[in-house]
Amino acid sequence: MTDFGLKDHYAGVMKGVILGINPDAAIIDITHGVDTYNIIEASLRLMNYYSFFPEGTVHVVVVDPGVGAGRRPIAVESGGYFFVGPDNGVFSLIYGSNEARRVIEITNPKYMLKDVSNTFHGRDIFAPAAAHISSGLEIHKLGDEAASPVLLDIPKPYTAKNEVLGEVIYEDHFGNLVTNIPGKLVGKGSKVYVGRVRIDRISESYGEAGAGELLAIIGSSGLLEISVNQGSARGVLKAEERLIRVIMK
Amino acid sequence: MTDFGLKDHYAGVMKGVILGINPDAAIIDITHGVDTYNIIEASLRLMNYYSFFPEGTVHVVVVDPGVGAGRRPIAVESGGYFFVGPDNGVFSLIYGSNEARRVIEITNPKYMLKDVSNTFHGRDIFAPAAAHISSGLEIHKLGDEAASPVLLDIPKPYTAKNEVLGEVIYEDHFGNLVTNIPGKLVGKGSKVYVGRVRIDRISESYGEAGAGELLAIIGSSGLLEISVNQGSARGVLKAEERLIRVIMK
Amino acid sequence: MTDFGLKDHYAGVMKGVILGINPDAAIIDITHGVDTYNIIEASLRLMNYYSFFPEGTVHVVVVDPGVGAGRRPIAVESGGYFFVGPDNGVFSLIYGSNEARRVIEITNPKYMLKDVSNTFHGRDIFAPAAAHISSGLEIHKLGDEAASPVLLDIPKPYTAKNEVLGEVIYEDHFGNLVTNIPGKLVGKGSKVYVGRVRIDRISESYGEAGAGELLAIIGSSGLLEISVNQGSARGVLKAEERLIRVIMK
Repeated sequence: MTDFGLKDHYAGVMKGVILGINPDAAIIDITHGVDTYNIIEASLRLMNYYSFFPEGTVHVVVVDPGVGAGRRPIAVESGGYFFVGPDNGVFSLIYGSNEARRVIEITNPKYMLKDVSNTFHGRDIFAPAAAHISSGLEIHKLGDEAASPVLLDIPKPYTAKNEVLGEVIYEDHFGNLVTNIPGKLVGKGSKVYVGRVRIDRISESYGEAGAGELLAIIGSSGLLEISVNQGSARGVLKAEERLIRVIMK
Repeated sequence: MTDFGLKDHYAGVMKGVILGINPDAAIIDITHGVDTYNIIEASLRLMNYYSFFPEGTVHVVVVDPGVGAGRRPIAVESGGYFFVGPDNGVFSLIYGSNEARRVIEITNPKYMLKDVSNTFHGRDIFAPAAAHISSGLEIHKLGDEAASPVLLDIPKPYTAKNEVLGEVIYEDHFGNLVTNIPGKLVGKGSKVYVGRVRIDRISESYGEAGAGELLAIIGSSGLLEISVNQGSARGVLKAEERLIRVIMK
Repeated sequence: MTDFGLKDHYAGVMKGVILGINPDAAIIDITHGVDTYNIIEASLRLMNYYSFFPEGTVHVVVVDPGVGAGRRPIAVESGGYFFVGPDNGVFSLIYGSNEARRVIEITNPKYMLKDVSNTFHGRDIFAPAAAHISSGLEIHKLGDEAASPVLLDIPKPYTAKNEVLGEVIYEDHFGNLVTNIPGKLVGKGSKVYVGRVRIDRISESYGEAGAGELLAIIGSSGLLEISVNQGSARGVLKAEERLIRVIMK
C-alpha cells in the first residue's frame, strides 16, 4: 500500500527489487491510491485488510512525507505478521492491536540496495527489507530495537451514556462514508445523524433501503458506514459533513 | 473483474483470502474499472477476455448491486472454464456461448470465510470459492445445482436485409466506441452511420485513415468499432450518439 | 508498461496469454498510464526501472500508435535484459546504453497467437513472444535480425560552459517535475531557473525546504527534479513551463 498513484513506475520498480531478492514472492497490490502523504488514512486502511492475509505475510506501507529527512525506516513483527515502512506512526494501530510486538530500526546496509537515495526508500530500503523477511530473514538481523516508535493520534469515537460521536475516516469508491465507529457500539435500533440528516435505523443489507436511498450499515470492516443503495452517499449528502452522531434506542 | 475501483483495499483483500487458501494461485487483474453496478458492461467485457486464458482458469466477476439482498452466489463450469460471482445475469453470455454448462449455488459454509458479511461477498464467498476451485475442488461440493440462473437481456444487433442496427456497448480508454455488431455481419464495402456522420468503408488498420480521422474497423474482440487514428472517436464525435447503422454494399 | 489505461481488459488479457504459454511467469505491472501514444515518455520511463529488475527479465512495452500499419514488431537483447514491443523508437535509449545488443524482427507465426488482429499486437504478438522468451526461447528463433531499428530523437540537455539547458520530460503523481538533466552535470551550489523562478541551491532531501516550498533535488532516477516538500511543484508553479536552466556556481 502506497500513495504513489498508478501513472509512474514507482510501485512497479519496488516489485522488481523484491523479485531480484526473492523470486518466489507473491506480491499483491492493496492500493496505491492513499491520499498523498495521508498517514492516518493509511493506518486506518491497514486495519481493514492485514489480517485477511496468511500469517507470515509482510505488509509494506509507504506513505512517507519525511523520506530522507531523518525519520527511521522500521520493520515490525506483531500478531504473526510483518510490517515494513517509515516510522511515522503509520503502524500505530498495529501496535495497539497486538500485545507482543517487536520494532526494529532498519540500519544494516547488507539488506538495502547498494546506493540508497534520499527520495525513494520504498525502492532502496523497504522493498529489499520486505523481500529478505519474506525469504525467512529474522528481523533482528536488519538492525537494533527501535526505541519509542512514533504513535499517531488516530481519531477515536467519543462515547457517552446513550450516544456515540464519531467521524468519517474515509470515503470509498462507491461513495460509502466509512466512520471510525465500531459496529459493536451501535444497537440495531439506533438512530444515526449525519449533520442534520437523520437515518432511523441500522440496516442489515443495502437492499433494505430503496434504490437511491440513504442508509446506515455495519460495513465489511466492522465499522458503521453511511451508504446509499445502488448509489453514492457522498453524492446524496453533498455537504462535506464528517461528524457522525449515533443515538442508542 | 470488479467495479471496486482502485482506491480502496477491496480487490487486494480478496487476493489475500485467495492466497491463504491456495498459495500457488496466479491472480490476474482484468479491470476494477467497470462502471459501478453495470452488470451488462461486465458481461460484455467478460466475452472479450475469458477464452484467452488457459483452460481451467477461474474467472471471478464481482459487480454486485444486490449483495446481501438474497441474490444467489454461484459457480459456473462452462466450456472448460470456471466462473464465480453473483447470480444477477453477469454470466448470461457465457451460458449462451457453450452448450454444456453447470451452475451451482454456493451454499456450503465450509468453503466460505467464517464470518460472512452482508456487504462484501467478494471477500467472504467468491474469493474463497474461487481459491478452492483453483486448488482442484469440484464445484458440486460448493452446493446444489442452481435452478434457472438469471438471464439478462443483453442488447443484440437488429439485422434486416442489407442493414444492421446496433449500438455502442462501451467506450475504451482510447475513445474507441465498441459496438455489439459482430465483424462477420459486416462486409468490407459497408457504410457505417453514427447518427448523421457517415463512414464510407471498413478499414483494415487504423493507419488507413489519416491521423485524427474517423474510421470503422473490426476491433480486437471481433466487433465493429468506431475509432480515430491516433485520436479519440468520442472526442471527435462529441455527441453521445449510441446507435450505429451499417448499410451493406 | 503500456498506454492502455486501467478501465479495459487489454492489459489483463495479455497476462492470460502469457500464463497460457508460461504458467510460471511472474508478471509485474509497471504502469498502464503512459500518455496515450507518447513513445518518448515511455522510452524515458523505461530507463528508470528496467535495470532494477533481475537479469534476464523480459520488459514488454506497448505504446503503439502504428499498430497494424506495417511497423515491425521486435525483440531486443541488450545488457542482460530482453525487451519486446513495436519498432517505433521506444527502445532508442536502450540501444544507446549498452554496447552489445541484438534486435530481431518478430516474424515467426509459431510464436504468435493463431489469429493476429490488426489492432492489438500486445495480445497477439508481444505477449506470446515475451512468454516464450521467459520460458527460455532464444530470441533469434523469433525471426531475423532487424536492420536499422527506429531511433527516436529523445530530447537531450544542452551544455555550455557553466550552464545546462534542459527540459521537463514528465510530471509524476506527486507533481514532481522530472527533467532530462543528469544529476552528475549539476553541482551542489548550482542555481536552477524554472522560467523566471529561481531556486538557489540543490537540496539533498525534501525536508531541507519548508513544507510547501519549492526545491531542486537529484531524484531517485538520478535526474534533476523540481519538487515541493509535501506538495506539488506543478501546483505551486502553475504555468506549464518546461524549460529548465541550471547555472553552475
